[in-house]
Amino acid sequence: MHAFVTGAAGFIGSNLVDRLLEQGHAVVGYDNLSTGRREFIAKALRSSNFDFIEADVLDAARLNESVRGADIVFHLSANADVRFGTQHPHKDLDHNTIATFNVLEAMRTNGVKIIAFSSTGSVYGETEVIPTPEDAPFPIQTSLYGASKLAAEGLISAYAESFEMRGYIFRFVSILGERYTHGHVFDFVQKLAKDPSTLHILGNGLQRKSYLYVGDCVDAMLTAVECADAKINIFNLGTDECCEVKESASWIAGRLGLAPHFTYAGGDRGWIGDVPFILLDASRIRALGWRPKLSIRQSVELTVDWLKANEWVFSQRGPR
Amino acid sequence: MHAFVTGAAGFIGSNLVDRLLEQGHAVVGYDNLSTGRREFIAKALRSSNFDFIEADVLDAARLNESVRGADIVFHLSANADVRFGTQHPHKDLDHNTIATFNVLEAMRTNGVKIIAFSSTGSVYGETEVIPTPEDAPFPIQTSLYGASKLAAEGLISAYAESFEMRGYIFRFVSILGERYTHGHVFDFVQKLAKDPSTLHILGNGLQRKSYLYVGDCVDAMLTAVECADAKINIFNLGTDECCEVKESASWIAGRLGLAPHFTYAGGDRGWIGDVPFILLDASRIRALGWRPKLSIRQSVELTVDWLKANEWVFSQRGPR
Repeated sequence: MHAFVTGAAGFIGSNLVDRLLEQGHAVVGYDNLSTGRREFIAKALRSSNFDFIEADVLDAARLNESVRGADIVFHLSANADVRFGTQHPHKDLDHNTIATFNVLEAMRTNGVKIIAFSSTGSVYGETEVIPTPEDAPFPIQTSLYGASKLAAEGLISAYAESFEMRGYIFRFVSILGERYTHGHVFDFVQKLAKDPSTLHILGNGLQRKSYLYVGDCVDAMLTAVECADAKINIFNLGTDECCEVKESASWIAGRLGLAPHFTYAGGDRGWIGDVPFILLDASRIRALGWRPKLSIRQSVELTVDWLKANEWVFSQRGPR
Repeated sequence: MHAFVTGAAGFIGSNLVDRLLEQGHAVVGYDNLSTGRREFIAKALRSSNFDFIEADVLDAARLNESVRGADIVFHLSANADVRFGTQHPHKDLDHNTIATFNVLEAMRTNGVKIIAFSSTGSVYGETEVIPTPEDAPFPIQTSLYGASKLAAEGLISAYAESFEMRGYIFRFVSILGERYTHGHVFDFVQKLAKDPSTLHILGNGLQRKSYLYVGDCVDAMLTAVECADAKINIFNLGTDECCEVKESASWIAGRLGLAPHFTYAGGDRGWIGDVPFILLDASRIRALGWRPKLSIRQSVELTVDWLKANEWVFSQRGPR
């Protein structure tokens, strides 16, 4: 098949691109390289099956001509920054909601019928049902990020209903692994490089979070696209585990061979809109035969190893 | 209090404006008059407590300066056209989602803390839980209109959480009454004026819909704003009744003194995204003491009477 991938040079996007190429598919990658890295698609660029377009999903005209001929669009470009939404509310609206609208319009114009979308467990807000299934009670949004992804989900569903498309919506927990460039493991490794004696943790460290290895995430997406064929297919993607932030911090420090003193900002949330307990019920994707290969601890440690082996990602981190 | 009302010259907005003025509040009305009618605010314009600003909610700068000093914003401006979303997908995104973002940003900039918003029962899509409560299972959108309103709800909730605002979200059934200018009663009365012998009905006529009188709708909004004070307050607004489209058609014809032959387009939906059965559980707003004063049949007949007495609304209907 001919796959079109937005956010192709990003963390999850570039891992997906590599996998699709390994499977022999033709892939067009689309990325504005604002947070994506050309290094992440270095291998892909050597493949004759890969074309790369450096452009922005907010450039509707460019997107429109680029999507032409695709069998499926993996729409992974996003403002993936959950924490700092309150500092620039327009960013989530632009890069997550309006960008998704642009992708859908480009697909409609070009007769492309299948979209797979990276949504987030953040759309459940502070749900009371944990582990949270896909049909949890109507959620109340607690972050601009979650709201912008929920809006994108709604657009995809409405387009599928209105224009005979098929949509795959993946509600991710936080993803870890090779090419990971933001989030708490990144922050902790970076802080410990500067000061190995102390690690300051946002909140009280007792927030319980769930993580998934990027390879398992890509597996799950491709399993769903292969096995599910409803008009709208919604899947939680996560392991059945969660861990406390301070537990994860101790794994990270241990993997680095450090024993820092932990200090805590206090409070049960790390920032406004932080959800203190995230655990998704992933039985729907498991029913298709998918299983994660790595535990959360293995994912965290693999990520630490990758960051240590690729310290350039810290120095070259864009200011977006 | 000083109330700011978007869509102030519209159907529901102008009824709300009149009520707020009757209660002695100062009101600033904001409307671009694209579907709103200056005639609907003729009475308000004679009040010294009313200021009218003819401008668009997509004009962020104008909106920003206009909101200044308000105690509460009633954000009622919208593209309220559910049926024709597929013909211009951008319209719902612009006038419902982005417009709501603009309103929230104007409020944030000016320190205005309370927003009351006209959402819709369409956000429940084709839910299996009927009557539908506010915490029904996570819905799947079936129309661009519903998706755009869901996106606006998410933005309001995220802003309330992020910027210490308070939000009132009202999920309306279809509203009827004085100044009603679009929807099936409008269409049927208009069709019967042209040809009193035959009435063509979209779908099979068995779609079950719920309606609410605009006076009862305004009562409910003001009751909620007065009595509920959570960060986010979500209320279904509807009667406990529903009626079939062909039943409503017979009431309309009867009220006009006609006995037309009904023909049906067939199918269980009137258009793509039409929801065949809408009935909201309004026990949450009823728990605050609110009760509708008119039945659905009374609302339909009052609307027919108002349309007959105001036939100019047919000839002057804008092409927006």
